Amino acid sequence: MQLTLDRPKLISLAAGFTDNESLPVEETSRMLRLILSNARISRESLQYGSTAGDAVLRKATAERLKKADQPAARYDGNYKSDSVLITHGSQQFLYLMTECLCDAGDIVLVEDPTYFVYLGILQSRGVAARGIRLETDGLDLSDLERVLEDLKEKALLPRVKMLYLVSYFQNPSGVTTSARKKADALALLRRYEKHAGHPIYLLEDAAYRELRFAGDDEPSALTLSRDRVIYTGTYSKPFATGIRVGFGLAPEPLLTVLTRVKGNHDFGTSHLAQHIVRAALHSKAYQKHVGVLRERYAAKAAVLCRALKEFFPPTVNWQVPRGGLYVWAQAPCDTGQKSPLFQRALEKNVLYVPGELCYAEDSTRPIPQNEMRISFGGATETEMTEGVRRLGIALKQLS
Amino acid sequence: MQLTLDRPKLISLAAGFTDNESLPVEETSRMLRLILSNARISRESLQYGSTAGDAVLRKATAERLKKADQPAARYDGNYKSDSVLITHGSQQFLYLMTECLCDAGDIVLVEDPTYFVYLGILQSRGVAARGIRLETDGLDLSDLERVLEDLKEKALLPRVKMLYLVSYFQNPSGVTTSARKKADALALLRRYEKHAGHPIYLLEDAAYRELRFAGDDEPSALTLSRDRVIYTGTYSKPFATGIRVGFGLAPEPLLTVLTRVKGNHDFGTSHLAQHIVRAALHSKAYQKHVGVLRERYAAKAAVLCRALKEFFPPTVNWQVPRGGLYVWAQAPCDTGQKSPLFQRALEKNVLYVPGELCYAEDSTRPIPQNEMRISFGGATETEMTEGVRRLGIALKQLS
Repeated sequence: MQLTLDRPKLISLAAGFTDNESLPVEETSRMLRLILSNARISRESLQYGSTAGDAVLRKATAERLKKADQPAARYDGNYKSDSVLITHGSQQFLYLMTECLCDAGDIVLVEDPTYFVYLGILQSRGVAARGIRLETDGLDLSDLERVLEDLKEKALLPRVKMLYLVSYFQNPSGVTTSARKKADALALLRRYEKHAGHPIYLLEDAAYRELRFAGDDEPSALTLSRDRVIYTGTYSKPFATGIRVGFGLAPEPLLTVLTRVKGNHDFGTSHLAQHIVRAALHSKAYQKHVGVLRERYAAKAAVLCRALKEFFPPTVNWQVPRGGLYVWAQAPCDTGQKSPLFQRALEKNVLYVPGELCYAEDSTRPIPQNEMRISFGGATETEMTEGVRRLGIALKQLS
Repeated sequence: MQLTLDRPKLISLAAGFTDNESLPVEETSRMLRLILSNARISRESLQYGSTAGDAVLRKATAERLKKADQPAARYDGNYKSDSVLITHGSQQFLYLMTECLCDAGDIVLVEDPTYFVYLGILQSRGVAARGIRLETDGLDLSDLERVLEDLKEKALLPRVKMLYLVSYFQNPSGVTTSARKKADALALLRRYEKHAGHPIYLLEDAAYRELRFAGDDEPSALTLSRDRVIYTGTYSKPFATGIRVGFGLAPEPLLTVLTRVKGNHDFGTSHLAQHIVRAALHSKAYQKHVGVLRERYAAKAAVLCRALKEFFPPTVNWQVPRGGLYVWAQAPCDTGQKSPLFQRALEKNVLYVPGELCYAEDSTRPIPQNEMRISFGGATETEMTEGVRRLGIALKQLS
């Protein structure tokens, strides 16, 4: 992101920025007029709130999730206001959760590849990561079992605290893990818990769930367990990243501990930002905007795919995305930060995310060196086409 | 805070809420109209920014501080944009700084009494605190020396990372530490550094600096050292706590590390919130509002003091505040959470902060049991008078 902000001529196919043209300027203005013209609400929104978040927004969040998970939402207790913590983006929830659950020396299971900023969180807290292979339809369960068995043999299961899953239109791979696979993964974790001596949680990161433009929604992991699933989502990417409101749900006693830690971090998320989201949900401006965004990203993804087809050599593999912000590609050459491809791309003022950054440091398996994440979020259609054209030239020269 | 939000009939003289009536509803509306009617700025404000914060706001922050510290602002390097990190309230800066600088088992020197949420941060991170006595004009330097000498004898100086000072209208005591005393404290820290083997920083928390309604401003500790002072302040309390924008300044390499940690926590503070503050500073709406608030709090403090004089028994001691949000009082009886006074106050639906909560767990000295923090921030004038009347009855019965 910093590079993008510093070099305005750079075409960034790397940054996780959202589409600039479709940001809800009108909607946000309208919400703010509503909020600030109301004598009571205006003052409330400019004053501190409670640490866990605005009560109305927590309730709306729980209810929306329950509705999204119907008819599979069998555990009422998973969808209570009291289970919801409002955070400064879902990123903050990931941080707080990891702080609460993991000590230095602990282990978190992650997907291979996974959200690289989460790897940064783990590293900063001295927590190790073990990568679990990802298939085109989600987590490779036999690999999960193999890793759990290996950890059991090495008597390391007591250090394993959770499995982190970016389960919808994964960042970076675009892969969605089905509810069936999530259930099987949970059952596997349960099976190994007796050797761990404590619960092994499934932390489901659903940041991209609402950015779906093809196929049907999958029920969340909250439909699968009363006491082993932690879920986080966001109102930022589907509405406005500049507002920065996310949320997470966790079973007790985790949520109480999380709320205390949130109190230490910042006392609670900006009340004004929460009120904007609350008003947008209430007025359906949010839901309408998500609809607009879905069409927008579908169109942008189509432009990107067309460019990939036209300019990339046929030796590069990639999947047509069904949601999210990313296309994940396998090249026939090295794509790393020090590779000729990355350097040549930079010379041509194009940036992508080298796939190697999305893999945990896990000495039990090699890290693929030939992948890249290409975003259709922030760049315009013209920029994407031009960026892919330039990247395609570099790829043809090097592969 | 939670108790206040849950029991609407309670008169809270405890919460650190700001005055509700003077919240800048009109000003915020005006700023938002400016921001959201501008084609470029509106999109910028609704999109991710950079982790360290909006460049214009960082610059304005550095410049305002330099101006406030004139003519003593001799170290230009202390007032650069690059030294500023924008945070989700100054609370978040305190957390990030402590995360960066302290390991579990380390020691931070704090004032006796000090900001109790900071004690919570230290505790949550396994960092010990040593209390330094506070006099009516600030830190007791001979006590600071005594504690440093004690730590040296016990070979604990290598664990001492910083002195945390709430130097303006301290929460909870209302005391301001003069620039002279800050200079002497820094010199003392320097003297003991060779036994520590690393820098011992002065972390100056200036959250209440702008809420001054009597006397002159003191230059900050940034005027005293090029490389040992960390400074944090906020735009929340002097404008709107619901917007939640604070900032901190630190010398390199601390600021780079801090920014990386901030990236892990949340990627950067809400861009919209930063734009509101930026616009308010640029248009001087902020400065004007601070002027209004100063008069408002001066009036509220006067009402509180009048009530204290009228209703409290003369055996209770307290100082007339010159800024901030609090009066600190010494009673002739126990004030703790389990004391008859606190219980009786709760029965009468009045809440204050028991002084004992504001002291570090530090076995080298006893914790005073007879103090209380009374806020003139959130309660209305009528509520304050009535709350103090009820508290006064309880005090007279028990002392």
